[in-house]
Amino acid sequence: MGEVNFHGVFPYLVTPVDTQGNIKSEVLARLVDHLVRSGVQGLTPLGSTGEFAYLNWFQKRRVVEVVLEANAGRVPVIAGVAATTTAEAVRQARELEALGVNGILAILETYFPIPESGVINYFTEIARAVSCPIVLYTNPNFQRGDLTLRVIEQLMKVPNIRYLKDASGDTGRLLSILNLVGDRIRIFSSSTHIPLCVMLIGGIGWMAGPACLIPSQSVRLYELARAKKWEEAMILQRELWRINQVFTSYSLAACIKAGLELQGFPVGDPLPPQVPLKEEAREEVRRVLEAVGAL
Amino acid sequence: MGEVNFHGVFPYLVTPVDTQGNIKSEVLARLVDHLVRSGVQGLTPLGSTGEFAYLNWFQKRRVVEVVLEANAGRVPVIAGVAATTTAEAVRQARELEALGVNGILAILETYFPIPESGVINYFTEIARAVSCPIVLYTNPNFQRGDLTLRVIEQLMKVPNIRYLKDASGDTGRLLSILNLVGDRIRIFSSSTHIPLCVMLIGGIGWMAGPACLIPSQSVRLYELARAKKWEEAMILQRELWRINQVFTSYSLAACIKAGLELQGFPVGDPLPPQVPLKEEAREEVRRVLEAVGAL
Amino acid sequence: MGEVNFHGVFPYLVTPVDTQGNIKSEVLARLVDHLVRSGVQGLTPLGSTGEFAYLNWFQKRRVVEVVLEANAGRVPVIAGVAATTTAEAVRQARELEALGVNGILAILETYFPIPESGVINYFTEIARAVSCPIVLYTNPNFQRGDLTLRVIEQLMKVPNIRYLKDASGDTGRLLSILNLVGDRIRIFSSSTHIPLCVMLIGGIGWMAGPACLIPSQSVRLYELARAKKWEEAMILQRELWRINQVFTSYSLAACIKAGLELQGFPVGDPLPPQVPLKEEAREEVRRVLEAVGAL
Amino acid sequence: MGEVNFHGVFPYLVTPVDTQGNIKSEVLARLVDHLVRSGVQGLTPLGSTGEFAYLNWFQKRRVVEVVLEANAGRVPVIAGVAATTTAEAVRQARELEALGVNGILAILETYFPIPESGVINYFTEIARAVSCPIVLYTNPNFQRGDLTLRVIEQLMKVPNIRYLKDASGDTGRLLSILNLVGDRIRIFSSSTHIPLCVMLIGGIGWMAGPACLIPSQSVRLYELARAKKWEEAMILQRELWRINQVFTSYSLAACIKAGLELQGFPVGDPLPPQVPLKEEAREEVRRVLEAVGAL
Repeated sequence: MGEVNFHGVFPYLVTPVDTQGNIKSEVLARLVDHLVRSGVQGLTPLGSTGEFAYLNWFQKRRVVEVVLEANAGRVPVIAGVAATTTAEAVRQARELEALGVNGILAILETYFPIPESGVINYFTEIARAVSCPIVLYTNPNFQRGDLTLRVIEQLMKVPNIRYLKDASGDTGRLLSILNLVGDRIRIFSSSTHIPLCVMLIGGIGWMAGPACLIPSQSVRLYELARAKKWEEAMILQRELWRINQVFTSYSLAACIKAGLELQGFPVGDPLPPQVPLKEEAREEVRRVLEAVGAL
Repeated sequence: MGEVNFHGVFPYLVTPVDTQGNIKSEVLARLVDHLVRSGVQGLTPLGSTGEFAYLNWFQKRRVVEVVLEANAGRVPVIAGVAATTTAEAVRQARELEALGVNGILAILETYFPIPESGVINYFTEIARAVSCPIVLYTNPNFQRGDLTLRVIEQLMKVPNIRYLKDASGDTGRLLSILNLVGDRIRIFSSSTHIPLCVMLIGGIGWMAGPACLIPSQSVRLYELARAKKWEEAMILQRELWRINQVFTSYSLAACIKAGLELQGFPVGDPLPPQVPLKEEAREEVRRVLEAVGAL
Repeated sequence: MGEVNFHGVFPYLVTPVDTQGNIKSEVLARLVDHLVRSGVQGLTPLGSTGEFAYLNWFQKRRVVEVVLEANAGRVPVIAGVAATTTAEAVRQARELEALGVNGILAILETYFPIPESGVINYFTEIARAVSCPIVLYTNPNFQRGDLTLRVIEQLMKVPNIRYLKDASGDTGRLLSILNLVGDRIRIFSSSTHIPLCVMLIGGIGWMAGPACLIPSQSVRLYELARAKKWEEAMILQRELWRINQVFTSYSLAACIKAGLELQGFPVGDPLPPQVPLKEEAREEVRRVLEAVGAL
Repeated sequence: MGEVNFHGVFPYLVTPVDTQGNIKSEVLARLVDHLVRSGVQGLTPLGSTGEFAYLNWFQKRRVVEVVLEANAGRVPVIAGVAATTTAEAVRQARELEALGVNGILAILETYFPIPESGVINYFTEIARAVSCPIVLYTNPNFQRGDLTLRVIEQLMKVPNIRYLKDASGDTGRLLSILNLVGDRIRIFSSSTHIPLCVMLIGGIGWMAGPACLIPSQSVRLYELARAKKWEEAMILQRELWRINQVFTSYSLAACIKAGLELQGFPVGDPLPPQVPLKEEAREEVRRVLEAVGAL
């Protein structure tokens, strides 16, 4: 793929698993093809709404194999690496690179709080273990703590740490990061209430689960932002926000999976003890998808 | 002042108090005059950085008298009302309206958690007690809880509740509010990391302490946003954010007061047991004000 | 009253206020008499369930006058002082001592975070302003932050700071404090799930709202603990805990006031925008009071 | 081992791992023997300070094999099962029972919030998969949320769910649980600031990492409590608390491992990116261990 330049909409791919724990490769491949044909600029398997925290290594590897094969080099694939130990994360990163991914989304899972020196070590070791670009992942909602500016300042010195996915939604934090990293590190935001502001601030796109459900609308939003048609873009973002607003009342992975079922992708339920959407919630998802033309 | 239409930059005026507890009216009047001449669209005494939580009623009333007299009708004055009881808030609102303020910034102080019905009652009673427009104030950082969408949905039915100052910085929340209230309620944001995004989303200005220190830069940012020169505006906002970024390390009221001292307004220190800035912090404030041309 | 030696059960007295804002002195006096006759070792007006945060100074002063007169020197009266500014707290403390209270429960109200040096200053100034003993109050539930060990270490040097009311319920924290202060400062705990453990650790009693409703049972628990009949005491505490367990579902001040109404003390509702108990909750309070023989 | 009746001190065994990721079986076996000879009533491998969150399945299984062999049936072994998915937890529980453990400490790891029905399902499926007794584990410090009373009320109906390890340190919560479960479920507490209170309330012992370092002192505390010598026990607990107080400033797993190294057990450092204690902290651990006679 030559020198990469990641940007645009990267859907967090859901992970369809059957009751025996096998990856449903046919439906995953079909979803990948659908998203690429809808114009997304990249694909991210094993992100948060890909339920990375609920999969074992054999499932994770199989997901990446299926995605790479279905994508067939059409768009960049940035796969999630997530572990509590540095050794395990390094192992995963190496194997995924060997499989052929174009980038690594590096996620630190924690149980005990980890001091800054440990956090720096974790991400640095992952980066050193591979030659592809690394996207740092930071999500204060589901992780303990956040990547501090001091940590980012150290990590930006590692050559292949080139991107940051910031799920904080804190524009002050984003401005501080941008004032710190300049063009050295590029910023992906999270989902549909913030991407336009992040693009205006200087971001280059977003990684998010809902883009699985509204790929063409997401790409349209991205293109409007890129063309600096900010007011027109904001009208679209206000409309798309209604979807995420519904999702905030429920489990995000359950919502995306329910929505994809409605769209004809039998991806199944989130892995137990996660709980699938109840009928009423499913109806709400249906209504809001219809309202934005995604059903 | 006829039918009001609040918009633009409303600095939260600091409250200069001498060691006997008297309001230093001369310096406050001079600051008011300076801000109005710098182009701000309004003034807000008794906001958070006005240390409303540290003043007794006699001090509060005197602040408003001095501001109204120094302003002499040039721009709208929206004064803060803050109490734990409905009765006290209603009393304050009536007295401030009688003094001549153009609007009330209504703040709920809490000790025990207050259920939604109590919150609705509090703001409704304040609004009914006066005829001027009410700005609802919501700040999850210093208050317990936030105004929920359900509460806002009820309060928007009260005729003179016309504005909301949202200090959450949560653009998802803002989109949800805007999708709920349409043009019925207008949104003011808080300080310099978020106002441009809020303007793009549909906000009408901001109320903030730092605008005391950078009034002309703030007005310039507002005008760029109003003229839809979003990229040019963002360059300015990124620059101005450096000021707020410094302030986040310290007490905001102490920073604004220290900065004004540097600008030649002897407003003194925040009220004890608040602690004034130490020398090193004062130097940092000086440097960042110089960097944006505010010294 | 000579050299004081505070210990035992100090009910936080509720504050009965009529719709005009006047203190209902007759019912408050009757409650005081009832509690003293029930054997409580002291009285604490203007504590948290006394709604100190919802009263103005005239109301606060009147409460203390009524309590002192009704008590007529039978038990020690420790009155709450609470303010955001040092100056106001000092003023309150002086006036309350002049009225004749035997001790001051010193409470720091906050809006902005206050650094340790400010916290130390606040409590030290209150202590210096009076000659009676000071009880430091610390409640992480309703205040921002807590008195740190470093702050307590400084404050224990002030001669008349002699007691600490710790509402944290954190026995590790209490052990750390006791290991720090030895016999220099005596510890009061809060309500009925923790007092026996705190007594075993080395505490000397408790200050709590529920003791208004179950004064004789509380005194019995205290006496069992003092007599080191720990197992017998624990049986009683497990029984009394059922009351507090009910209260945790609702507003504490509303529960205590509702319970007192059921016991024949027309103390009214908590001050708006606080919300009185609904009928169902009132029934639950009735049932649990009947179950412990308090109705 | 016949009908089990777990009670007393169960140290959370640390997990010694070499740089290749192998379990250091010799030192682990020696530690097990030392603890059993010191009188502990049971052993818990794969608890929180056993770094369960940092081990893969092969490491976990090896830990249990080594512990079972070194223990040789002298005391009950309750091993930790921890997973994000029900399927993986069930698999682990079955394998551990087949290895010969006497009980399972069941831990729910979470990423997305799990509703109560999912939590109930998770623990019920684990219990059904084995015939040995289950200890429910709940730790609000490192997990999201806590086992609610409603969840416990459902789970107490499952025949082999017989114990609860509650790490909350909230005596009110413990009283509520005890009032709910009666003798149906027995309570283990966590470490050295709370066990005496929990024993007085009705608990039957504790599971904790520090007991690795002070086994005989812990057993002495337990025996004093069992003999109802509460005041004598409290003197010992106040002394032992000094150890935990030191540990709260650092990572617990790092402290226990550092202390064991000082005692002659070369267990190594916590797994990266966890960070070992710095020299100064190590000295502090040394001093406090010396002070309680554990060095």
